[in-house]
Formats: sequence, C-alpha cells, structure tokens
Amino acid sequence: MTDFAKTRQMFDIPPGVIYLNGNSLGPMPKAAPNAINSFLMDEWRTELVRGWNTKNWFMQSNTLGDRLGRLIGAPAGSTVVGDTLSIRVFQAVAAALALAPDRRVILSDSGNFPTDLYMVEGLMGLRDVGYELRTPAPEDVLDHITEEVATVMVTEVDYRSGRKHDMQAIIKKAHSVGATVVWDLAHSIGAIPVDMYGTNADFAVGCTYKFLNSGPGGPAFIYVAPRLIDQVAPVLSGWFAHEAPFAFDLNFRPMPGKIDRMRIGTPSIAAFSLLGAALDIWDGVDMLDLRARSIELSEALISGVEAKCPGLTLASPRDPEQRGSHVAFKFEHGYACMQALIAQGVIGDFRAPNIMRFGITPLFTSLEDITQAVDILANILTEKTWQNPEFQSKALVT
Amino acid sequence: MTDFAKTRQMFDIPPGVIYLNGNSLGPMPKAAPNAINSFLMDEWRTELVRGWNTKNWFMQSNTLGDRLGRLIGAPAGSTVVGDTLSIRVFQAVAAALALAPDRRVILSDSGNFPTDLYMVEGLMGLRDVGYELRTPAPEDVLDHITEEVATVMVTEVDYRSGRKHDMQAIIKKAHSVGATVVWDLAHSIGAIPVDMYGTNADFAVGCTYKFLNSGPGGPAFIYVAPRLIDQVAPVLSGWFAHEAPFAFDLNFRPMPGKIDRMRIGTPSIAAFSLLGAALDIWDGVDMLDLRARSIELSEALISGVEAKCPGLTLASPRDPEQRGSHVAFKFEHGYACMQALIAQGVIGDFRAPNIMRFGITPLFTSLEDITQAVDILANILTEKTWQNPEFQSKALVT
Repeated sequence: MTDFAKTRQMFDIPPGVIYLNGNSLGPMPKAAPNAINSFLMDEWRTELVRGWNTKNWFMQSNTLGDRLGRLIGAPAGSTVVGDTLSIRVFQAVAAALALAPDRRVILSDSGNFPTDLYMVEGLMGLRDVGYELRTPAPEDVLDHITEEVATVMVTEVDYRSGRKHDMQAIIKKAHSVGATVVWDLAHSIGAIPVDMYGTNADFAVGCTYKFLNSGPGGPAFIYVAPRLIDQVAPVLSGWFAHEAPFAFDLNFRPMPGKIDRMRIGTPSIAAFSLLGAALDIWDGVDMLDLRARSIELSEALISGVEAKCPGLTLASPRDPEQRGSHVAFKFEHGYACMQALIAQGVIGDFRAPNIMRFGITPLFTSLEDITQAVDILANILTEKTWQNPEFQSKALVT
Repeated sequence: MTDFAKTRQMFDIPPGVIYLNGNSLGPMPKAAPNAINSFLMDEWRTELVRGWNTKNWFMQSNTLGDRLGRLIGAPAGSTVVGDTLSIRVFQAVAAALALAPDRRVILSDSGNFPTDLYMVEGLMGLRDVGYELRTPAPEDVLDHITEEVATVMVTEVDYRSGRKHDMQAIIKKAHSVGATVVWDLAHSIGAIPVDMYGTNADFAVGCTYKFLNSGPGGPAFIYVAPRLIDQVAPVLSGWFAHEAPFAFDLNFRPMPGKIDRMRIGTPSIAAFSLLGAALDIWDGVDMLDLRARSIELSEALISGVEAKCPGLTLASPRDPEQRGSHVAFKFEHGYACMQALIAQGVIGDFRAPNIMRFGITPLFTSLEDITQAVDILANILTEKTWQNPEFQSKALVT
C-alpha cells in the first residue's frame, strides 16, 4: 500500500494552508531547494558547458520522460519532456494530421482547454488547404468520430467539471475509422491511472506543474506510440531531434526510430532538476492506491458540501468513475466565495462563469484537510462572509 | 566606464578554470542560488498558485523582455522571453511569411545555425503551397535579396567563424524589395551592440544562455517591431497570447497591439528567476565599453596565437569590425587539441570539422586569462600533448 502519510511529509506546505489547488499548480516538494542547488553548484557552476556530457543534460528529456511515462503506462523510450503543453499540442496534432493526409477534420470538444483549441487554430492558419475544427459537446464526441476525421484531440479530464472521457472507447472508435487520437493528459497524469500501452493510444501530451508538482511552468511532455514513431514527422524539427545534432548538417534528418525526434530546442535544465525532485515522490506510489484515495477524498468533499453548504451544486459527475481528481461546484457568488475561502487558508480556484474548483491530490491532502475545508466553507456561507467588499475585486489570474 | 573587474566578481567560476566558452554556455552568476532559492521559498512555496498574481509571474515574460531589450536597442514593449530559440525561429519566420503572402522564397545562408534551417524545413513541410529555402554563402546574401524573397532569416554573428553580417545593409536591401528580415541574435545579444530600433529591424530572436548567462536551456526571446505588431499573427497561438486568457474563450483573439501576442504557453518561472539574476549583472554595463573590451581581448588572443601557436590559422575575420565576440582557429587536430586544453582548465569548444572556438566575454574574462590560455595552448602544441590517447575519444556533445 502506498504510504500517503509519508508522501505528505515530502511537501513543504505553509502552516495554516489547506491546499486544494494542486490540479492547477502543485506545491513545492521539500527536496526542490536542494535539488536545484545541487544542479547549480555541482553541475552548472562546476562543470560549465561540460555538463551536457558529464551530467547527462543532453539526455534528460528522455530519462525524465521515461520516469513520468510509468505514470501513464507508457513503455520506456516513448515519452520525452520539454517545452510547454501548448507547443506539444501543436506538435502532436500536426504530426497526427500528416498521418491522414486526405482528411480535413480535427475533432475536439467544447470543454477542451482553450489553449489546445488556440494552438490548433494557429496550425490550421498555416495550412493552405482548409481544415475544419469541430467542437461538439464532450458527451457527443464519440458520435462525431467519422471517416472525415483526421484526428481527435481531447483532454481526458475536463479542466472545469472534472468529467472524464472514456479513453478506450474513443481510441477504439477512432481507429475503426482510420483516425488517430491526441490525448491531453494535463488533468490525468498523477491524478488517475492512465494506460497508454493498454489502450493502444497514439499520441498524448501533458504538463507536469499540476499533479506532478514540478513548479510553475514546469516542462511539458509528449508520448508517441512506438508503432508510429518512425512515420511521425516532428514538425517542430529542432536540432535536439536530429539524428546527429553535433554534426551541424544543413539538412534535418529526424532521429530514426526513436522518440528523440520529438525533442525540439535546448531545454531548461534548471526546470528539469525541479521535475526530477518532484518525480522522486512518485517512486513509491501505486496509481491504483492513488485512485482509491482520490475517490475517498472526493466523496468526503462532495458529501460534506451537500450536507453543510446549501447553495452550492455539484458541477462534476456524481459517479466517481466519471470523474478525474478534482471536484467542481456551481455557486452564483463563486468568485467572491473562493476569495473568502482563500483568505482563510483554504486554497481552491474559480473558473468563469460560476465554478468553484477543488483539486484532490492524495500525495499531500488528508481527510482532515477535507473536513476542515468543508467546515470553513460552511461558515463562510452561514456568515455570508463572501459579501465582504475585499472579496469582490477581480485578480488578473483567477 | 563599465567596471569589468566588478562584473567579473559577480560570477562563480571554479578556481583553475579559464572559461572561454561563454558563447556556448555562460557561467553561473554568484547571485543565481539566492535568486532561485528566493523564488522557491518566498514565491512558489509560500504563495502557491497565488504567485501568478502576487509575484507577477504572469507578466515576467514581458518585464524580463524589456530588461534584455535594452541590450539590443529594442523599445519597451517590443520583446518577450520564453520558450526555446528553435520555437522562436519558427514563430518569427511563420509570422514573416504571412506578411508577404504572395512570395515563396525564404532566404538564409549556409553558415546559419542548423536548428534555424531545420525549423524552417519543418514550417515549409506544414505549408501546402511550395516554399523554397535558399542558402547561399553568407557573403552572397545581399545579392540574393530579390523581389522573390518573402523574408530573410540570418544569424547576425556566425556560430563558427564569428563573421558578422552587415545588419543595416541587409535590412535596407530587404525593405527596398518589400521583404522583412528575421535576425537570430544568439551570438549577438550581450556580445556586441545591437540596435533594433535604429536599424528599423522587423523581427529578432535569440537565446539567453550564452552571453547573457541564464543557465543551460535558459529562456529564448522574440522581438517584433512595434510598427508591425498589430499585423503579426502569433502562429503559435497559446493562451498566454490571448486578449483575455482567463476568460477561457473557445476562440483565439490575439492581444491587440501588444507584444503579449507572441507569448505562447505557460513559461518556466524557475528559469525566469535565473534569467533575472543574470540580467542584474548587465545593469551597469555600457555596450560600447563592452565592445571595446571584447575587441581588446580578441586581438590579444589572435596576436598571441599567431605569435606562439604555429599550425593554427585564424578562421575568423581579421578585421575586428567584421567579427562578433568569439574567435575561431582552424587546426587539423582541433578536436584533440581542445580536449587537451580543457584538461588543463582552458575551456573553449570545437566545431566540426576542424574549428577551435574561443568565446570572448568581457564580463568575466581578463587579459591575463587570455595570455595564460595562449601560453597553455602553445605548450600543448610544443609538447604535442594533443596526441595523448585520452584526448581522441569523441564526447556526445562537443
């Protein structure tokens, strides 16, 4: 059994804070300062440019990719880290389109995270033949997978509601009509069990600053099925994807048969060192234990709110099997109410127009955190603390 | 006058090392560990997700962009940092092509850094109309700027030879035929004076891990002339480029009239904190002083090698006005000779097939460093130390 009391001790969470926003930005692992100091002093300072060889900076995209790949059921050699999720979405969708050159439809859904749709818009603008981006409601995606579709690009767990797509069903349907699927796992990795290999997934992308706790803007990742890698064009074909980067050839030759071809430019090694420290915490974690614990905590939150917090209605699926690892409630005064909660040390977040969102992160969230948070929320509602003027002004980033 | 004895004290260079490779990876500023520890403890750890507002993470792409913009004569509000140079090349060239929709030629040169050419290859592969990438010899670029050319993409200072393009002449010629220019300033920023505004430049990109000392894989930057920004499509249109990122609209609306539209996804704030510490060193530096000092040091290296190191021939222009801030020599046994130098604490690097490259970085390189390095090199040549078997084996990254 995974020891969640032990993993909780591996985070440095300020006293008085109940942090229910690890689905947006994970908290700092206690090991982070030493990890980065060691990178600075023992690697950059001491090895200088030699660190690319002596400290293996050059291959960290891959070694870290393999480490996080375990959390999504990806075989070794199928995942690399680096760049942002936006960039990885662009790269994956562009590569997927090239596998179906005669098709012109990209299928997503209206619940997808906007940057995924924006990046596809940008990609479509580069193409001179016309592509069409379809965004039906999430529950209608399966019905829209037809032979017109080149690729399906969906986020497994909805960033607002926490609703979870049926990965296996979507992949099966897509493959049956000759399409591929690009999964955005931003709210899946470290949140729920994912099985890239077992579901026969084609492409996946995601970020590491949410449930993986690599720090703000930590590196993204891309997974490509080994069966596809030799056919896949990197599209964003930087020198780290070249068969021989230090030959300095004028022509691009993608690394044959390897995920290395999806690397792009020179990645931040400082950011990698933080990701490494964050992944250490996952070494002893079993994803099925995590899922059981996530459901236990989520159910405690939902039943607590239903019992003690009138006015809030569940915006996530009631069936835990249909959810990822965050829980959303609708509340007319959600923005101000969330500010009032944050002022009392309970940190969740708000998503327009009326969603109060709470991340459920078993690595550091206890059942006591949940019951305390519910009591504080109940008190805010009883006292109508959210009406206080200081909780009305909108911050830049919510 | 800039106090280079003082700036030298701001770097933590290991004793016994003469570091002549700041053109590849700058050394660690002494302030780096405190800067990142402060980011970790006072920002990420303490503020958690609130840091996007309270610590202004959301706008650091811009504030750091403005700080480094000063070093290239860019007006405030015209430069943002983030992503890699490869990604920024792609973004800039794609945007430049959109400004000349009827033209089909991208002009570069055969001395350009390969990743720039690779990224353009990838971009051309996305376009369904045929583009042509021309790569004449660097000295012939000016003659190849014709009305067929949509955009000229060149690196101002050649990464091997240090040869410098005539920025003003290329921009004038390009504008006279209705083309734009995308400058790669990887070996210019922090190396030589650059004047984006004065030369009426269109686009520029560059990295910060070389002469700016932000650490391995530090953030890249992009400059867009303010006169162009409202016409320029971001292409890599991530949510940080949106007019209202936290409205979570399904459709992309680029931030009107602002360089913000060239931001992409969520950037690494850890990497930004290192860049901030590195830029602090530049605050008291005058770029004309830096240029004078760079030439003084370069001339000392060249005359020392010419006097004491037979067998090496200068591969950089002899006229300092034609050079950036590194010096290259050809030597048949250059690889092994460089390994022998590194073994004795003089760190330069090697570029195939036969180039020994030395970065000239006035912020931390003294005249005594240069004379010592020349003496050590002369001794290696006299003793033929480079024949030692340990210096023959090729490292992954050279």
